[in-house]
Amino acid sequence: MSLIVHKYGGTSMGSTDRIKNVAKRVAKWSRAGYQMVVVPSAMSGETNRLLGLAKELAPSSASMSYQRELDMLASTGEQASSALLAIALQAEGVESVSYAGWQLPIRTNSAFTKARIESIEDKRVMADLDKGKVVIITGFQGVDEHSNITTLGRGGSDTSAVAIAVALKASECLIYTDVDGVYTTDPRVVPEAKRLLTISFEEMLEMASMGSKVLQIRSVEFAGKYKVPLRVLSSFTPWDIDLTEEARSGTLISFEEDEKMEQAIVSGIAFNRDEAKISVLGVPDKPGIAYQILGAVAQANIEVDMIIQNISRDGKTDFSFTVHRNDHAKTLDLLKSQVIPELGAAEVVGDTKICKVSIVGIGMRSHVGVASKMFKTLSEEGINIQMISTSEIKTSVVIDEKYMELAVRALHKTFDLDQDRA
Amino acid sequence: MSLIVHKYGGTSMGSTDRIKNVAKRVAKWSRAGYQMVVVPSAMSGETNRLLGLAKELAPSSASMSYQRELDMLASTGEQASSALLAIALQAEGVESVSYAGWQLPIRTNSAFTKARIESIEDKRVMADLDKGKVVIITGFQGVDEHSNITTLGRGGSDTSAVAIAVALKASECLIYTDVDGVYTTDPRVVPEAKRLLTISFEEMLEMASMGSKVLQIRSVEFAGKYKVPLRVLSSFTPWDIDLTEEARSGTLISFEEDEKMEQAIVSGIAFNRDEAKISVLGVPDKPGIAYQILGAVAQANIEVDMIIQNISRDGKTDFSFTVHRNDHAKTLDLLKSQVIPELGAAEVVGDTKICKVSIVGIGMRSHVGVASKMFKTLSEEGINIQMISTSEIKTSVVIDEKYMELAVRALHKTFDLDQDRA
Repeated sequence: MSLIVHKYGGTSMGSTDRIKNVAKRVAKWSRAGYQMVVVPSAMSGETNRLLGLAKELAPSSASMSYQRELDMLASTGEQASSALLAIALQAEGVESVSYAGWQLPIRTNSAFTKARIESIEDKRVMADLDKGKVVIITGFQGVDEHSNITTLGRGGSDTSAVAIAVALKASECLIYTDVDGVYTTDPRVVPEAKRLLTISFEEMLEMASMGSKVLQIRSVEFAGKYKVPLRVLSSFTPWDIDLTEEARSGTLISFEEDEKMEQAIVSGIAFNRDEAKISVLGVPDKPGIAYQILGAVAQANIEVDMIIQNISRDGKTDFSFTVHRNDHAKTLDLLKSQVIPELGAAEVVGDTKICKVSIVGIGMRSHVGVASKMFKTLSEEGINIQMISTSEIKTSVVIDEKYMELAVRALHKTFDLDQDRA
Repeated sequence: MSLIVHKYGGTSMGSTDRIKNVAKRVAKWSRAGYQMVVVPSAMSGETNRLLGLAKELAPSSASMSYQRELDMLASTGEQASSALLAIALQAEGVESVSYAGWQLPIRTNSAFTKARIESIEDKRVMADLDKGKVVIITGFQGVDEHSNITTLGRGGSDTSAVAIAVALKASECLIYTDVDGVYTTDPRVVPEAKRLLTISFEEMLEMASMGSKVLQIRSVEFAGKYKVPLRVLSSFTPWDIDLTEEARSGTLISFEEDEKMEQAIVSGIAFNRDEAKISVLGVPDKPGIAYQILGAVAQANIEVDMIIQNISRDGKTDFSFTVHRNDHAKTLDLLKSQVIPELGAAEVVGDTKICKVSIVGIGMRSHVGVASKMFKTLSEEGINIQMISTSEIKTSVVIDEKYMELAVRALHKTFDLDQDRA
């Protein structure tokens, strides 16, 4: 009997009517003979409501004891939605049981609000599945070795679902969300954007990391590492559509490169205005500076995205990187107070009014000139490029935030993404 | 250093402003040198909101798997409010940490939605207290031997607080609520009702069980069994009142009978319209019928309050008892389907339009004629008595619901409860 993991986002769980729909859909799969594990997010708005209350009580704090309490607080959202889904399934006549992360347990490290999954115990789940029950597992959360509740950070329910699929050796992980798949770019910015039927794991990784927001990047990494077939699809299609049809809808994140995929050079345009740029200017060019700067940043649990070091002039170099906008002020403080004094003469500047735009595609590997076509398009639109970073399947630029839509639309057209494709 | 347990009800935790007030009050006690453990309820309205969602999904069910999910769901309310209080205390500069029942653990049996505490592990709490932290423990919930979350039933946070006070050998347990103590009767029914400065444990037990709603009865039983001094007081007095004054406000539930208490014959009038009456008529009068009827009821986890068996006539007897109104239909069904057929010829009738009114007082032990004074008063008001039950310190009658206020006011006057007392 095939084991399937479904994950439902906050919007899909947003009301009791929607939860009933989820229950009907899961019941359909269960009755079709699949062993079902479901990972729900909190009802939409709930996590924000809870964290909003915390903010009213204490504007913010980086202290570990504060972060610990935020996790105690936020984790209640998924626990409640999981119990509600179990109840809705029981009302559908399907035996079901919900578990919070600590009840299995889903073991994580102790990095509160950004924890990483270390292991998942499957004994209880397998026993329940063998009894024919649908098992519901809270997304987003786990427990550390001291029995403290941890959360995986925003969007962590995707990661939970994939990690659970891996641990249970599921044959597929279906991520139900409020969009019906992965698009060539955000349709709100480019109405001509097309849904991709398949996307390679590597492309998806780039799309996700660039903020296309369909899937959390860590869930894609996880799926890639363990080769779990992952499918993004909409929870707003009628619950009673034909199962075969449903199983093939959405976008499949594929781990085999087939010939068809080679045809397209660029699969999509990703963008993101969640980042801020930080430049350390006039750094003495000697071994170890990258570590000196970024080691401290990493230690403060701040994630760094793009990193660029220009060639040196007069024995000095400039070092730039991007962080999440929420971490911008904290990173600047950290650099000014700890790192700069040690580095010797140097200045730090930051800019939050930026955005990152990327073209992503496996086809880029074997096609020269893709990056220059991108730069030409931006230049024709009069958009100045502040930073460039490239990989085998992606070229990213940092530009002024105000040009984001213009750049995305122009690139979408340049790379023929508004044409129908097989 | 003296260890104190504070318990705050849902109204006291009802908004972020109120939570800030609770934090300030607890911080005051902590700074005065007390080791502080705090047990908060869910924010007012939260438990109803959650259970309302469950009801929209599945009107109701007695199945164990449904009850289990209700506990998963409802327990999130206290977990959230505990985390919020910890955050508010941290904002006040007081180190604090919150624990859900399972994290200590607070071990209970598996009677979902009505669980009983079996043991409380104090190791983590004592370690934190020794470090000078305020420890916040979720009320209302625990965990069974299979790591399932359980809840103690409505008002269970009082029981949690007292059980925690017992386990930690606290010197006093202060129950902060939205009233400033225990009154001779409900002031909403009798405006002349007076606050009692002290009340004996036994009287309080009768008052609580009769629905004076200030404290959950099981918390009083617990406190009585382990002789934990218990005080009911208001969380709406200014948080910064003098500590000695605060410690003496409210009503102390005392375990020593002093002479002063002997002066009053009747301490209070309790009443309750949460019950329903059930009578099994024409039962063959032979040994074991009480067990046959009530054994089945108890097995269904339905709590029985008053039990009355009339003398037999012609080898037949009538057997009456009261249950919570919510359990009325379920009890009738149970008796009709299971018990009556086994008992032989018998009929079952029920009535939900009743109320119970009691006079309570340790002084009744040594004063004859108190009960007859009660019956006389009711008769003068033209109120018919349907059932009577007495104990050493209480006389209860069941009357038609519509006469409740009339009966309570008349009795309050008859026993001079509207006079000031020491």
